[in-house]
Amino acid sequence: MSIYRALSERFARIATIGEASAILGWDEAAMMPDGGAASRGDQLAALAGVIHDMLTDPKLGDDLAAAEPLDDDWQQTNLALMRDRHKRAVCLPGDLVEAIAKASSSCERIWRSARQDSDFKAVAPALGELLALTRQAAVALGEALNLSPYDALMSQYQRGISSKDVEPIFANYETFLREALPQAEAIQAGRNAPAAAPPQVPVALQEALCRTLAQQAGLDFTAARLDRSMHPFCGGIPSDIRITTRYDESDYASALMGVLHETGHALYEAGLPKNFARQPVGEASGMATHESQSLIIEMQAVRSDAFLDYLSPLLHRSFGGDAETFSPAALRARLRHVERSFIRVEADEMTYPAHVILRFRLEQALISGDLQVADLPGAWNEAMQSLLGITPPDDRRGCLQDIHWYAGLVGYFPSYTLGAMAAAQLMAAARQAVPGIDHGLAHGDFGPLRGWLRANVHGYGSRYGFNELLVKATGKALDPVDFQRHLASRYLAVS
Amino acid sequence: MSIYRALSERFARIATIGEASAILGWDEAAMMPDGGAASRGDQLAALAGVIHDMLTDPKLGDDLAAAEPLDDDWQQTNLALMRDRHKRAVCLPGDLVEAIAKASSSCERIWRSARQDSDFKAVAPALGELLALTRQAAVALGEALNLSPYDALMSQYQRGISSKDVEPIFANYETFLREALPQAEAIQAGRNAPAAAPPQVPVALQEALCRTLAQQAGLDFTAARLDRSMHPFCGGIPSDIRITTRYDESDYASALMGVLHETGHALYEAGLPKNFARQPVGEASGMATHESQSLIIEMQAVRSDAFLDYLSPLLHRSFGGDAETFSPAALRARLRHVERSFIRVEADEMTYPAHVILRFRLEQALISGDLQVADLPGAWNEAMQSLLGITPPDDRRGCLQDIHWYAGLVGYFPSYTLGAMAAAQLMAAARQAVPGIDHGLAHGDFGPLRGWLRANVHGYGSRYGFNELLVKATGKALDPVDFQRHLASRYLAVS
Repeated sequence: MSIYRALSERFARIATIGEASAILGWDEAAMMPDGGAASRGDQLAALAGVIHDMLTDPKLGDDLAAAEPLDDDWQQTNLALMRDRHKRAVCLPGDLVEAIAKASSSCERIWRSARQDSDFKAVAPALGELLALTRQAAVALGEALNLSPYDALMSQYQRGISSKDVEPIFANYETFLREALPQAEAIQAGRNAPAAAPPQVPVALQEALCRTLAQQAGLDFTAARLDRSMHPFCGGIPSDIRITTRYDESDYASALMGVLHETGHALYEAGLPKNFARQPVGEASGMATHESQSLIIEMQAVRSDAFLDYLSPLLHRSFGGDAETFSPAALRARLRHVERSFIRVEADEMTYPAHVILRFRLEQALISGDLQVADLPGAWNEAMQSLLGITPPDDRRGCLQDIHWYAGLVGYFPSYTLGAMAAAQLMAAARQAVPGIDHGLAHGDFGPLRGWLRANVHGYGSRYGFNELLVKATGKALDPVDFQRHLASRYLAVS
Repeated sequence: MSIYRALSERFARIATIGEASAILGWDEAAMMPDGGAASRGDQLAALAGVIHDMLTDPKLGDDLAAAEPLDDDWQQTNLALMRDRHKRAVCLPGDLVEAIAKASSSCERIWRSARQDSDFKAVAPALGELLALTRQAAVALGEALNLSPYDALMSQYQRGISSKDVEPIFANYETFLREALPQAEAIQAGRNAPAAAPPQVPVALQEALCRTLAQQAGLDFTAARLDRSMHPFCGGIPSDIRITTRYDESDYASALMGVLHETGHALYEAGLPKNFARQPVGEASGMATHESQSLIIEMQAVRSDAFLDYLSPLLHRSFGGDAETFSPAALRARLRHVERSFIRVEADEMTYPAHVILRFRLEQALISGDLQVADLPGAWNEAMQSLLGITPPDDRRGCLQDIHWYAGLVGYFPSYTLGAMAAAQLMAAARQAVPGIDHGLAHGDFGPLRGWLRANVHGYGSRYGFNELLVKATGKALDPVDFQRHLASRYLAVS
């Protein structure tokens, strides 16, 4: 057996154990009774330990060092990604990994009550400790990978784009927003008053429509489930996808948009290259690319004029009540509404990047040491004022709102906005390449769009990093202009 | 750290990975879409491989050999059970384990269609191959454990009782049945005609009552779930129990009895000694003991006069309709009905042991080589004729009905009847020790029975083998007289 073949088998075994963790993670959120929590933590930690042991096995390192360059580009990329994983696993001392695991779990627990009480001081010491450990890991990772500490953290979530690429893009967006947001608000205010409150819709009806639309978008329920959880997500594995949502009877759109968002993630997973299943190169290329796939479905396709025209009568048929509340105009008013707000996860697509820019800058300063934990609430509120012109009334609606930092996730936030921008860029390219996309959406047919995404994004797995993939698919690296054009046409055109 | 302590940590890690498998096994049966099947097989195999690697690790063997005898009896038993597991894992050559895994999976697949077509010849070659491999494993296990090949197989499912103990007990039962069954049938025939067909009951109402009664029996839904699957079972782990059932709107009793049966298994798991959680001695003592705990709830408690009197008005309140169909007499006629039948899993408690005796004898002959696979259908039908006086019209209702042999499970069947007999023996002892048991059941209160079971069975984990545990709890090893007394009072008393 060739060394490469032996390596592939080892990585397939690692991936298979990772699949077990993925299903258990879904179960934890969607099914597990409270009593199982402590044991589940142990189970996931034990599996992570098994994977870590396999990745740091000296025999694996020897094989990786001995492997010859391969003629096949996919295999060669696969080998490079194997080496990257091994390097990341061995460069962190075991006691640091353990200390981070303990500190995250403790900090996250403290954060839950601190957020509830809007009491930043209560969690500040734990956050300080966790950030100090995260910084140590960032330095070690950065040395091994030849990246700055912050880029080393960012690269855990998305390879192929660095903070140096992101900074000008975000600065450019800040400038755009400063003009665009007041304009959009003025146009919005000039329209008729927003439609009446949406009707109450029983959960069973919502769920049935969510299933229908997810299926229309391309989700294959012989290889997927839709369930409920507190925080919606897409989990599982490519052949057994588990998406979740939550239902609110007084706001049917939230589950519907949520399910279609998760369906976008699911289509990516389902479309990954099967001949590299369970290999590093066969996985999704990162969180920014993943987010581009959820947002191209939710924001670009589903909220398009074409699809809303299709959705309008379908909603009325499915939910009954007053047709007027489901008119295309009412849907546009409801689903494309800009508003300066405090909470990232509730933000519209125009203001959302401001929330991300704020976090991107603050987390860089926290890792570099330019910002002390004690000064975080003040820095947060100043940045909100500067970016959106509003100041959170308390830290619950400020620096305590997101779990990420308190769970040790630093470098993740940019992915959300990189994904939103990439979604616009990919949609523009897809529309150019496939003229039938909007015609399809107007008839509830996602096929033309999905076909293009499968060929130009999903099927590449991790063959390319973020910007490389965009160059392949759209002819250029991430370019904020497509996203701004998208926003301008949706929010800045007086209709 | 003492050697024993280090061993405990290793076994805790092994058990933790086993927990992950348990949850994934439940998911496979209760949740997984079809698309996940192949990947799930790989995931479970990978985890089994990890566990096997850990159990056969030479360092583990060295520690087990070096460990000193311990003063604490529980710890000493734990150490003995650790050694037993290690021995079982190392005595089987890796290629034999792999060959058995492949042959079982292939044979089971062929069996599914062979059963459907009632075509034994189609599966005979695969069964022959699997049995040959099973025999090899039995010989290797037997040599390592100083047991006969068949007892070595039996000991995988239940320690503390051997085929030499079982043979006279089963022979004795055969004699009992030869007289008792015709008597019971005559008494049954002499009663009024059986009640009208049970009412149709919507699944939602059935499920609600199943939950209520499982909870009353002691199932804690903050640490358990009830779901649906094709074949009902109790899975999961002590702090996160997963029971399943299936509902039939035209036969409400089947889900109800099924859920209470699985609840009996669940109470055993939940009552295992917490200070030995994840240790071999902290696990259930085997499948026969486990079956005694499901049957003491389902057969002994729930079908008792006391509980049926309680259940009667509750069923009427819960399901509505004609009170007469839920009268205590109607329930007794329905839930305590003897009948010679072909299918083990549908058999009543009096004829069930005949199905097990048949399998016990035939599987011994298959392993010893006294019975050839080609002769199995004939031997099966002869034995059915001899034991119950009926001959299956086809192999689907004969030797093709059960999955066990076709999945490589030989030595398991006796557990069902040993459990049924132990349940009667334990119930007799419990009634003697705790006078309030039937008074409790008459008020829907399982507390007195459960308390006795927890103290005398559940809390012992694997501290004792099957017969030892019975001696501790009832003063004697398995004695078929208690089960026969139970049957006589239920089926042979002219009311």
